[in-house]
Amino acid sequence: MRNNAYRKAIIDNQEDLKGKIVLDVGAGTGILSVYCAQVGAKKVYAVEASETYNIALETAKENGFQNVIEVIHKRVEDLTSADIPEKVDAIVSEWMGFYLLHEAMLDSVIVARDRFLKEDGLIFPESAAIYSSPCSIPSMFSDWDDVSGVKMQSFGKLLRSEACKKPLTELIDPENLLCEPEVVSWIDLREVTQEDLNEITFRHVAVSTKVAAYEGICLWFSCTFPFPRGPVNAEPTILSTAPEEPSTHWKQTLIVLPDSIGMEEGSPMCYDLVMKRSQENNRRYQLEVTMLDAEEVEHPEFCSCFMTKCILVKAVLEKYEQGDGDVAAE
Amino acid sequence: MRNNAYRKAIIDNQEDLKGKIVLDVGAGTGILSVYCAQVGAKKVYAVEASETYNIALETAKENGFQNVIEVIHKRVEDLTSADIPEKVDAIVSEWMGFYLLHEAMLDSVIVARDRFLKEDGLIFPESAAIYSSPCSIPSMFSDWDDVSGVKMQSFGKLLRSEACKKPLTELIDPENLLCEPEVVSWIDLREVTQEDLNEITFRHVAVSTKVAAYEGICLWFSCTFPFPRGPVNAEPTILSTAPEEPSTHWKQTLIVLPDSIGMEEGSPMCYDLVMKRSQENNRRYQLEVTMLDAEEVEHPEFCSCFMTKCILVKAVLEKYEQGDGDVAAE
Repeated sequence: MRNNAYRKAIIDNQEDLKGKIVLDVGAGTGILSVYCAQVGAKKVYAVEASETYNIALETAKENGFQNVIEVIHKRVEDLTSADIPEKVDAIVSEWMGFYLLHEAMLDSVIVARDRFLKEDGLIFPESAAIYSSPCSIPSMFSDWDDVSGVKMQSFGKLLRSEACKKPLTELIDPENLLCEPEVVSWIDLREVTQEDLNEITFRHVAVSTKVAAYEGICLWFSCTFPFPRGPVNAEPTILSTAPEEPSTHWKQTLIVLPDSIGMEEGSPMCYDLVMKRSQENNRRYQLEVTMLDAEEVEHPEFCSCFMTKCILVKAVLEKYEQGDGDVAAE
Repeated sequence: MRNNAYRKAIIDNQEDLKGKIVLDVGAGTGILSVYCAQVGAKKVYAVEASETYNIALETAKENGFQNVIEVIHKRVEDLTSADIPEKVDAIVSEWMGFYLLHEAMLDSVIVARDRFLKEDGLIFPESAAIYSSPCSIPSMFSDWDDVSGVKMQSFGKLLRSEACKKPLTELIDPENLLCEPEVVSWIDLREVTQEDLNEITFRHVAVSTKVAAYEGICLWFSCTFPFPRGPVNAEPTILSTAPEEPSTHWKQTLIVLPDSIGMEEGSPMCYDLVMKRSQENNRRYQLEVTMLDAEEVEHPEFCSCFMTKCILVKAVLEKYEQGDGDVAAE
C-alpha cells in the first residue's frame, strides 16, 4: 500500500524523472530506487546506513539496474562530494515513523535537501500532515466489565492506567472518531527545518457529533506527493494512514485518557497537544495531552457545541450572515 | 475462547466441584478460581507467584468470593502444608505455552498434583496432545518474487533463511496443511512426570494429499477436560488450537524449511522432530526437524505414497483383505 503510493507518484511524475539524477535517502531494500530506474532515471544514489544496503545491492542487480543505481553504505549526514559529486533533480525517501515523527528520518531528508537538491528539485513526498481527533475505544477496557460471567473492572482500570503511560499503535475504527479530525501540523518538505521539528503544539476545541465515551486522542498522518507536471492527467498521490483508509503498519496512534468521559451530541472537547523532541534521542518525541476546561478556552466562531455562549454567538452570527445574504441578493 | 473452554468444563463438572476444595495453579487474574467458586466450590486456593496476585485478590472481591478464594502469593514449588493444610479435590490450571511446551507451567502442575491432589482428584485439563503436519506458507516468502513490479527474490531468500532459525507463531490456513495431522505426543496429566517432558521425539512419514509447495512443519495442541460424571449429558470439553479452529493467542507454531519443495499428490514427506528441554532454561525447548530420505525410512502399512514399493505392498494388502472379506461373506 505504501509502496503503491510511491510507485504511482513516481510513474505519474516520470516526465520529470526521465534522464534525471535521484537521491534515495534511507534506501532500505532499494525498492524506491528501482521504481525511479524503471521510469528512466539516469542515475540513482541509494544511500543506506544499515546492513540492509546489501539487499539494496541485490535488488538493483536482480532488476538489471546495477549500472543505474549506486548503493552507498553511509549515513546521509556523512556523505561527501566524493560520494555524490553533483546536485540531484529529485529526492525520494520513505522516512515516516509512527504518528509521522516517532523514529522518523525526516532530519536526514532535510540534510540531503539542503546539501544535494537542485533549487527546483522534487521531493517525494513533498508535504506531510498530522491529524488528531478525540475517539472512543470500546472493548479495549470495557470488555473487562464482564469476562464470560466474571467481573474484572478493577483489572480493566489497571490496564487503562497502564495504557495512559505511552501512546499505543492501534487500528481505530473510523466510527469511533467523535468529530471531524483537525490538522495538528502541516509540514512542507521544501521549507521545513530541523528546528521546526523540535516542538509542535496544537490546541483542539472540538465538538462531539455523537453520544459516546470520550476515551482517547487518535493521531495519524498523510503525505502528499508532487503534482504531476507532465502530460499525465493526474491528481497528486496522497498516502493516508487515516482510520477510514486501508490499514498500514503505521496503523493509528492512540493516546489513552485516564478515564472514560460520557459525551452528548454537542459536548465540547478541548485539549492541548504538545509533541516535543526527546533530549536523549533526537528521533523520539514526548507526547503530552492536557485536557482543558471548555469554559476557559476560546471557542471558534460558529462553534456548534451546546454551551449557552456558543449557541447565542452562533445564532447571532447566522442571523448576520443571513441578513448579509439577503442584501447581496437584492 | 480459552476462558470459555475452562468455563464450560467447570460448569459441566459442577457436580464434582460443589462443596469441594480446588487448587488453581498459576492463578493469574483469578478468573478460573472465580468459575470454580461460581459452581459452588467450598474453598479455592489461588496460587500466583507474580505481582498479578493483586489482580486475583481484586477479582475475588469484585465477584464476592473473598471468603471462598484464598490468594497465595508464592511459587507452587514453595508451598508448605501451612499454606495448604489439606488434600484438594481438583486442580485447575491454564499452563499451556506456545506449541504446548514453550514457556509452559506444566512442571508446576505436576508438583501440585503430586503434593496436593487426592488420589481420585480431577485435573482441568486432564490430557493434552501436540499435533504436527507439513504445510505450505504461500505469501510468506513468494510475495517477494514481484513487489509491485520489482523483483526481490534474493530478499525473499534471505527472509526464509532467517525464518528457519527459530519457530514462528503464525496463523496457518487449514487449506495449507498438506496431509492428515499426526499426534506427536499425548500427555496424561494424571501420569506424566517432569522427566517425561525432557525430550519428545516423533517420526512422521506423511503423504501429500495435494499439489503444493512443502515449506514448513506446523505444530499445535489440544487439551481435553474431565468427562462430566454428573447428570449432565455432555461430552468432555476440548480446547483445540488447530488451524481449522477459531484462532487463539497461541495461534500455530511454524517451523520454516530452508527451501520450498514441490509436492505431487502422493509425494512422501518424512521427518524426525525432536523437542528437547533447554539446559539453561527449563521452560524452553529446542525444536529440531531432520528431513529424512523417503527411500530410507520405513513407511506404514497401507502407505498411500506414490513410491513403487508402497503401491505394490498396498495392492497386495488390499487384495489379501478383499480375499479375507470374500471368505467371510460365503
